[in-house]
Formats: sequence, C-alpha cells, structure tokens
Amino acid sequence: MFQLTCEDRRSIRDLIDTRRSGYSLPRAFYHDPAVYRAEIEGIWRRGWLFAGQTCQIPEAGDYFTYEIDTDSLIVIRDDEGHVRALHNVCRHRGSRICGEEAGRIGKLVCPYHQWVYGRDGRLLSMRGMHGEIDASRLSLHEAHVRELAGLIYVSLAEEPPDFQPAADCLGPLAASQGFERAKVAKIVDYDVEANWKLVWENNRECYHCSTHHPQYVKANYDHFNEDDTTQAIREEMAESVARSEAKWAAAGLAVTHKQSGMATFPDAEADLWYSANRTVLARGYVSETMDGRQVAPLMGDYPDPDVGTLRMRTVPNFWNHSSCDHGVSTRLTPTGIDRTQVRVIWVVDAGAEEGRDYQLSEIMPFWQLTSEQDWKICENQQRGLTSRAYEPGPLSTYKEYNVDSFLQWYLKRLGEAVEE
Amino acid sequence: MFQLTCEDRRSIRDLIDTRRSGYSLPRAFYHDPAVYRAEIEGIWRRGWLFAGQTCQIPEAGDYFTYEIDTDSLIVIRDDEGHVRALHNVCRHRGSRICGEEAGRIGKLVCPYHQWVYGRDGRLLSMRGMHGEIDASRLSLHEAHVRELAGLIYVSLAEEPPDFQPAADCLGPLAASQGFERAKVAKIVDYDVEANWKLVWENNRECYHCSTHHPQYVKANYDHFNEDDTTQAIREEMAESVARSEAKWAAAGLAVTHKQSGMATFPDAEADLWYSANRTVLARGYVSETMDGRQVAPLMGDYPDPDVGTLRMRTVPNFWNHSSCDHGVSTRLTPTGIDRTQVRVIWVVDAGAEEGRDYQLSEIMPFWQLTSEQDWKICENQQRGLTSRAYEPGPLSTYKEYNVDSFLQWYLKRLGEAVEE
Amino acid sequence: MFQLTCEDRRSIRDLIDTRRSGYSLPRAFYHDPAVYRAEIEGIWRRGWLFAGQTCQIPEAGDYFTYEIDTDSLIVIRDDEGHVRALHNVCRHRGSRICGEEAGRIGKLVCPYHQWVYGRDGRLLSMRGMHGEIDASRLSLHEAHVRELAGLIYVSLAEEPPDFQPAADCLGPLAASQGFERAKVAKIVDYDVEANWKLVWENNRECYHCSTHHPQYVKANYDHFNEDDTTQAIREEMAESVARSEAKWAAAGLAVTHKQSGMATFPDAEADLWYSANRTVLARGYVSETMDGRQVAPLMGDYPDPDVGTLRMRTVPNFWNHSSCDHGVSTRLTPTGIDRTQVRVIWVVDAGAEEGRDYQLSEIMPFWQLTSEQDWKICENQQRGLTSRAYEPGPLSTYKEYNVDSFLQWYLKRLGEAVEE
Repeated sequence: MFQLTCEDRRSIRDLIDTRRSGYSLPRAFYHDPAVYRAEIEGIWRRGWLFAGQTCQIPEAGDYFTYEIDTDSLIVIRDDEGHVRALHNVCRHRGSRICGEEAGRIGKLVCPYHQWVYGRDGRLLSMRGMHGEIDASRLSLHEAHVRELAGLIYVSLAEEPPDFQPAADCLGPLAASQGFERAKVAKIVDYDVEANWKLVWENNRECYHCSTHHPQYVKANYDHFNEDDTTQAIREEMAESVARSEAKWAAAGLAVTHKQSGMATFPDAEADLWYSANRTVLARGYVSETMDGRQVAPLMGDYPDPDVGTLRMRTVPNFWNHSSCDHGVSTRLTPTGIDRTQVRVIWVVDAGAEEGRDYQLSEIMPFWQLTSEQDWKICENQQRGLTSRAYEPGPLSTYKEYNVDSFLQWYLKRLGEAVEE
Repeated sequence: MFQLTCEDRRSIRDLIDTRRSGYSLPRAFYHDPAVYRAEIEGIWRRGWLFAGQTCQIPEAGDYFTYEIDTDSLIVIRDDEGHVRALHNVCRHRGSRICGEEAGRIGKLVCPYHQWVYGRDGRLLSMRGMHGEIDASRLSLHEAHVRELAGLIYVSLAEEPPDFQPAADCLGPLAASQGFERAKVAKIVDYDVEANWKLVWENNRECYHCSTHHPQYVKANYDHFNEDDTTQAIREEMAESVARSEAKWAAAGLAVTHKQSGMATFPDAEADLWYSANRTVLARGYVSETMDGRQVAPLMGDYPDPDVGTLRMRTVPNFWNHSSCDHGVSTRLTPTGIDRTQVRVIWVVDAGAEEGRDYQLSEIMPFWQLTSEQDWKICENQQRGLTSRAYEPGPLSTYKEYNVDSFLQWYLKRLGEAVEE
Repeated sequence: MFQLTCEDRRSIRDLIDTRRSGYSLPRAFYHDPAVYRAEIEGIWRRGWLFAGQTCQIPEAGDYFTYEIDTDSLIVIRDDEGHVRALHNVCRHRGSRICGEEAGRIGKLVCPYHQWVYGRDGRLLSMRGMHGEIDASRLSLHEAHVRELAGLIYVSLAEEPPDFQPAADCLGPLAASQGFERAKVAKIVDYDVEANWKLVWENNRECYHCSTHHPQYVKANYDHFNEDDTTQAIREEMAESVARSEAKWAAAGLAVTHKQSGMATFPDAEADLWYSANRTVLARGYVSETMDGRQVAPLMGDYPDPDVGTLRMRTVPNFWNHSSCDHGVSTRLTPTGIDRTQVRVIWVVDAGAEEGRDYQLSEIMPFWQLTSEQDWKICENQQRGLTSRAYEPGPLSTYKEYNVDSFLQWYLKRLGEAVEE
C-alpha cells in the first residue's frame, strides 16, 4: 500500500530525466501528487529528521509531539534521561495517546481504555484484558532517535542511514554553542502554502536578500558573490577573518567559511546531507539582531560576544543560525505537495530570564522578519509554478549555485527512491 | 460507474484476509477510500437504514430530508397517512425539490420550473412542456420504506433484504414504548470526525464506560463483565431481575437480558442485524436520567415507571435506549472514510408539554453527555489509526466481545460486497 | 501529463453516446472529474475566451489578471496601445509577477529577484545572472489575444480557431454600443457552486423567468414562447418591431430578432459559437432597469434612448445585454466540476460621472438581481444532480430549445476533444 505503482515510478524516472542541469525544476515536481508520495517514502521516511532541541524537554516525562506524514511521534525524556521517540498510537485499538503538543507526564495513559505505558514505552498495565496477553510484546513502537549536542534527530526508517558522520561534523560546533545548557525562548509555527523544496531553494541563495531582507544583509556577507563583491568588501572581510582566526583559536573556535557568499551545501556526490561552519558577521555586528548588539547572556563556552555566527544545516528539514547570545532553529515538515509546516525555535542560555536578561522583542525580529518575508516569496512562487506556461529557467552561476546543489541532492535521492 | 474496479475488489478481499480474529482491524479499513466506496455500495446502499421516527411527521405533508451518500430522500407522510421516501430530485432537470431539512408542504413544487408533484410523488403538472410527455412515467423515484411501530426504515437497494424478521423482533418491544404516540422533544446533529465503524465499536463495549461515562455507569450494569462483576452486584441484579419478571409479566413486559455486560450483537452467523431487549436498571433508577428519577409522563402502555430499560439496535445505523418516560434514538450516516454524521433524537409521550410536563434540561443530559464523550473518543482514535505505526491490537474477551461481533458482521457483509 | 488517459477518453465517448436527444445530460457530466479535465483541455484551453473589456485598461501599463484553470494571464495595454495577454510567470524560477487583480505598472518586475520585463513582455534586465544568458529568449510567454470593438478575447490554444467570423458577426453591433468609449461602473465576482454548463443551461431558457425574474420579464419578450404568446403580445411586439425598423434604419441599427422567445444559440451544425442581435424591449422600457427608464447618458452613437436591447454571446464563457445607457457583460470561468467563478461587469459611457450622471443603485439592480437569482437556481440543481436517483428529463420543445442547442454544441466539442 505504501509502495508506489510501477507506473508512478516510471513516470517519475522520466520526469527526473527531463531536468536540465543549471535550470529550475519542471512543474510536475511542485504539482504532481505522485512526486509528493515518492518524496515522503524515499526522502522523508528514509532519512534523519530534526525534531527539536533537547532543551524543549529538560526533565524526565517532558515531551513534545511531532507529526510527520500520517504519523505522530511522542518525543519524550525517559527516566534514565534519554530521549525517545515513541509512536503516539495505543497498542490496543490505536487511539492517540497524547493529544497535547507538549507537556509533562508521569506515565503515558491512553485516554480510551486507560492502558498505561512507562516513559520508555513499555506497557505497564491493561486493566480489563484477559490473561493470555503478553504485555512485553505490546510496548509502544519506537522510531530511531539521536541526540546531537542538544539537537534531536528522529528517523522513521527501519534502517536509517549512518548518523555518525553528521554527528562528527555538527557535534563540535553545536557543543560550543551550548545547546545542552539552553532554554526555549519562543517557538513559532507557520503553515506555508508552498512545496518544501521551494522553501529550501529560497534558503539556498541570497540573490533575493538585498530586496527582501534589509536587516539580514546588514549583518552578513552571504549576499555578496563573485560578481558583486567589491574590493572594499573583500578587504573588510579578509581583515575580519584574519583577526578572528587569531583571536578565536584560544577559545577553540575556527573560521570555517572565509569568503563572501554562502558555503556550498548540500553535496550529492559526496553524500553530504549535513554541514556546519562558523563565519564572521559584518563589521559592527556581534549578533544577528536588528542593530547587531548582543541582547542576551552569552551561550555555551563563549568567552566574549565576538564569535561570529554559527550555521548548521541538514537536509531535508533543518537549518540553524546561532549568535553569541541566542540560536534559531528552523524545522520543515511537508504537509502536502503545496504545503509546508515550518517551526522556528529561538533558544537562549538556560540561566537567562526573560524580562531581566533578554526581551523577546530584541531576540526575535531579525529571524522572524527574515522567515516571514521568505514564506511569502515561496507562496508566490508556488502559485506561479502551477501555471502550465511555466518552464524551468536558468539559475545564476554566481548566486544560485546552492539551489543547483540542493536540486542535485534531491534528484539523486528521489531517483534512488523510484529505482526498481 | 458505481462498480468497484476488479483491482479494488481484489485488494479489499486481500485486506479482509489479513484480519486476525480477536484483534482490531488493519489500518486501511479506516483510511482507504476504496474501502469506503465498497462499504457504501455493499452495506449502506444494500441494507435497511433507520431514517427517523414517525412522530417527526405526524400529519399528511409533513416531511424531513435524509442525505445518504450522494442521495437525498424526502421522507414524507402522504394523504393516505403512509410514510414514503421520495428521491429529492426533480424528474425534469434534476433540481433539488426540498431545500429545507424538514417542514410541511401541500404539494411538492420544484423551485426551478414549478413542476408539481403530489405527496405520493406523482407528477401533477408540468406547465410549459409540450404535449407528448407522459406524466405517469415521471413520478418522483421512491426508495423502499417500512414503518416499524413508530420507527421509519428506508433502503436504497433495488431489492432490499427481508425486513420481516426485524419487524418481528423489534416490533413488540417498540410498540410497548408507544413510539407511535410520541412527539419529538429534541433533535441534535453532530459531525463526528471518525469512521462510522469506530462509532459502532465504541458503542459495542462498555470497557471505556467507567472512566468516560460516570453518569451512565451509575444507571446500568453494562460495564460489569465476567472479570469484574462482584458477588454483591450479581446478587443485586438477580434480585432485580426476579422482582421485575414477576411484576412486569402482568404488563406484558419481559426481562430479556438478565446478566451484567452487554447483550451479544450483532450476529454474523445467524445474520442478525437487529436486536432488542429489556433489562433492569441499577437500584434507584427508573429512567436514564442524571439522578435516575422519572422526568416526563409515562410513555406507551407502561403502567408505572418501573419498566427497566428498553434497548434496540440495527446495523449499520441505529440504536435506541428507552426509559419509562422518554426514548433516545441515535442514527449514523457516513459522510466520508473519516467522517460520520450522527443524529440523536429525544422523544416523549405525545401528550407531554415542554415546561409543564418535562424540561429538556432533565431529559437530555444523560445521553447528550454520553454521546459527546463518545464522539471525542472516536475522533481521537481515528487520528491514531491513520498512523502507519498502528497495528491491530487484542480485543478483551471479557469486555470487547461485541466489538468482535460487530467486526465479524462487517467483514462478512463487506466480503459479500466485493465477491466476484 | 495534460493528456487524458485512453480509458478516460473511451469512457467519455461512451458517456456521450448515452445522451438521449431532447433530454438533459446524464449525471456524470456534472460529477465526474475526468469529464471536467476533458472540458478544460478540449473546450476551455482550445477556444476563445472573453477576458474583459478594453475600458478596464484604458492607459498603457493598465492591466488586470485572469485566472483560467492553473494559469494566470496579465491582460495589459502595452506602450503601442495594444492589448496583450502575458503569462503571469517569471521566466527565471516561475514566481507570480503580478499579485494584484488589477493595477497600472511601468514595468513588470518579478518580486522574487527583480527580473524586469517591459509591458510587451520582453525581458529588460536580470541583475545578478551570468553573462551567457540570452535575454531575447526569455520574454514572458504570451497567450493569443483579440480586441473586438472594446471586448477582449484570449486563447490558451497553440493554434486557436479562426476569430474572424466572430469579429464579423459581433463587431458592428458591439461598435454601435461604443464599448471603446466606455468606462467600468462596477465589477462583481461570484463563486457559484455549480458546474459551468448548468449556468449556461439556465441562461439558455426563460422557462424559469416568470417565477424567478419578475423584473426581467417586465422588460422583455424572451419568456413568451410558441405555447404562451397571446395574440395581444404578438400584435404589440409586431408593432414595436415595425416602428423600430423604420426609425432605427436612419441610425444604422436593425431589428435582428423579431419574435418572442430567445434567439437560437449556439449552433453546433454551423459551428456558430458567437451570435449577436438587437431586439425591442417591452412597451414602456428603454433600458433594462427596474422601471425601464434611462438611468445614464447615452452610449456609443445612439441618437436617442429608443434603441431596444443589444445581446451578444460567445460560448463557452460570455454574454452581454446592453441598453442605450449601459451594458452588462457576464464572464464564466470554471474552477472545478461543481464550481464556477462568474464576473459581471457594468459599463457606461466614458464621459459619465458617478453621482452626477448615474447612480450604481439605478444601473445595477436589474442584472444583479437576475444574476443572483440564477446562481441560486444553479446551485440547487447541482445538488440535485449529484443524486444517483437523477435521470435525464425531457426538455420542453417550446421553452428549452436553446438548452438543447447548447448541449449539442457542448457534446460535439467534447466529442472532438476525446477523439483518438
């Protein structure tokens, strides 16, 4: 039932073949329900998905739910302090167990007939059932879960891909940010009327930044490319990099992205679905805030505010920008061929107190504005792409190289999903 | 066009074969649109459906409409006093004739071109048509209809199943309740976001009652089963039964369900899609009301309030609980694989006057609360069942025997529907 | 992808064969999504569609958008004063360019990356792209467009049908009305929950007029047919026609429909998808207004108010009723098998000033009431037609001859669309 038909596979393979390198994708990729099913099966149900941050569930029994495709996971901290991803489905007659989006529970009790499960998913009691039933075979089903220096990843796959390379890559940088000693400042959920790939394509270029993100371009060098990085900018950036390299080494930090423009990501050839780097912010900025000032206590092990900006991303559903004083994670979840649920999570140091140590009105606007500007762009693009008059257009080699990288990664994954 | 494809039939037969006896049904039964089509064709359009009560349409010309699948029926009392089920579709160009849910009409006039039909569906006038048209061939189409001691059943089938066994079974008990001399106290419609089978499965067990229906369990012995009926309860009930048998015989009433727990229903083997019994209420209760007191004048031929409780059910869409002073009918109608329209009808004696003889606030809460608690449970279960992690779980042999009975009946009917 | 499957074509051909001449259409024509796809491909994307009136975009840079199926057109006046229909899809990555329904622009600038197009659709600038890209191949795609004496027609077809016969037929009559020297008084959009064919079938008969359109029947002779045109009406109309013919000749106007009842249209045999005539209004009426009085300055070249009524129609989506002082265009656009977007446009002479020369409250009610009464009828019919109990009924040879004409035209077009 969850298999694509042979015809669907063939038509998707044919569709993949029609893609012209260096151009945007043909219309059906944003319009055809069979493509969406193939993406869900081949990408979203096979890979590792960012679910949230460990600081959302600091204590045993804390949980949040995460809905992916038809499934619902209870991401919960068990009595040993481990994070688990339990399927939110009673083993009796299938009721949802947790109806709330987040909370703290002693035990998991199905609201229908009060079957009781431990925080580790084991069935503890089933009052009213006859004797022959083996409770040990009726634990809640679990999805794979990994903790990565404060980030939580889940996978619905039976055998998910190796997580270690991602952990090795992101781990040290995430650790320096102190996500394990953080707290949630704010979570905002968006329902974006656009295919999830458009949200990524938007994320993978800063060609649109100068017009749409006036606050973002003041803080960063991302939007300058080979064609428009002036000598003055080049020198300014080189100076920042040199100064930072010298200074940060003492704190164990490194500048891992040294040019203007965005770091290349993802990489289909090398199978890199994860990446992380630290780079310098523009002159006068120590945080991605409206005026560049620090607006919350330092996070992690940072010795002073001058730590540039940390960026992490994992396809298909996560990116994070972190400054010295706060971090912002973005999580994508497709809910249809033309709909994506987006969650944005702001975190600060665990010891920071709202009102005293930080104001939401100071830490949120930079990424809230940038995000909302982007969702609007993506929705507008989705509407255009449904037209039969649309045909794939050329991607700028100066500015949209990462859109092409993303599409190559996507097409490789999708192609594997529809292989025979 | 209304035929399922061969592939659909085969896949549903395969699905039926995957069901493990004594377990809840596989996920596709609550999720797959082809299953829904097969149910509509094979169960809902073949069997007898409870439409309403005769007291909803006491006078000639009184009608209510009933929407089933794509069809709309006008259930109307004709000039001879018979109830008819006329298709709500003009024989000219197909307009709906009655736009209202209920009312009284002299003649049925199509709002488009004013074709006029009698209350028996015969075409009386078609102003503006040319001469050759034979009006006698343009009566409104009729569905089969049966009156059963105040209950109205309809069938969309060309050749519906034999109704007589159901009439023989339910008739005498329904007659004693006096449904033909009743009046509607209140009708409430619900849109429940759950498959209709879940509503039945919920109805067929009282395993969930002790937590969800605190008022219901005080009045009844349904929720006590082999595993938890104490000696004290056994004795209390036996005493009630003995006392009632002796007393009721004089009034022609009998105790036909004498144990705790629910009466077995339905019965796939014996093809019993109908059943009715009278049983005792808990000590101190003469009516299914919040405190057990009589709250309206006696109905039917009842000599005094001590008549226990009358229950009737017919699959796929009806159950009724009646007390000495009021009756409550529940009618299910599927509107999608994950949606059920539910109507609950409260009736009292025809002579009772609201405000003087009864208060809605006294006759309604018992079943209104019980119903609304159940719809919420069912919606929660539907959400859980859509998860791919759901797998059928064991049914309690103590408490869910009737869920199994219902599923057996359902699977047999569905299997017949997809036979070649 | 835009091809219907062989199975769809075959089943639609079979369906066409089931239609009984002189009867309304079988249910699937109003219910089956495959029929809708075939209509879109074979009728709506092949023929000429009325888009609007030239007076909606009087100046260079004025535009309005028109959504058809999945496509969006920018209907715009270019710098040479010509009307163009540009696809509202950027040649870069497919964004919608115009988000507004109407406006005036200097250049067309894509909101995503600021690619700039001229009012003729030529790509003028693509800041940030690499050098090798040939801008001359990246003009906005255009749909075919024709101006017809103030009316704008578009076609999504690669090779649309010959427009000249329609221009020859409608042109002279439209010219006399002065649509090129008009202005928009009001535009109202409706979302009608009925298949577009039902809206046409309703438009093609006045059988329903006497009950539903009390104001319309006072002004016109349409609703009188062979069966109910009395001798008095016949004489009154003949007298009007004779008087008008004598008088109008001087102004170059002619009575081209001289009988009661509606002019025959469309004509499948002769392939007439367009028609226009002028006829007399009822005694005492010089305009289709509530009381028959002139309520705005004379339009076009009309020497005095006594010019009867001008009617034009083109299938599949346009009709117009014009009086001496105002014109009303109706444009249909299907948005689903059971949904039609309807736009009604009222125009007056370009020199007329609202408040001084006319009141909306005087020019609008006649057609606003008539339109809204009709949409309600159509929605009611759509609901009835979904019933499986519906079967096609007889069309009155007196009153519904044009419904039959329309259905014949439709079936011929649809048949061609599903030919192999």
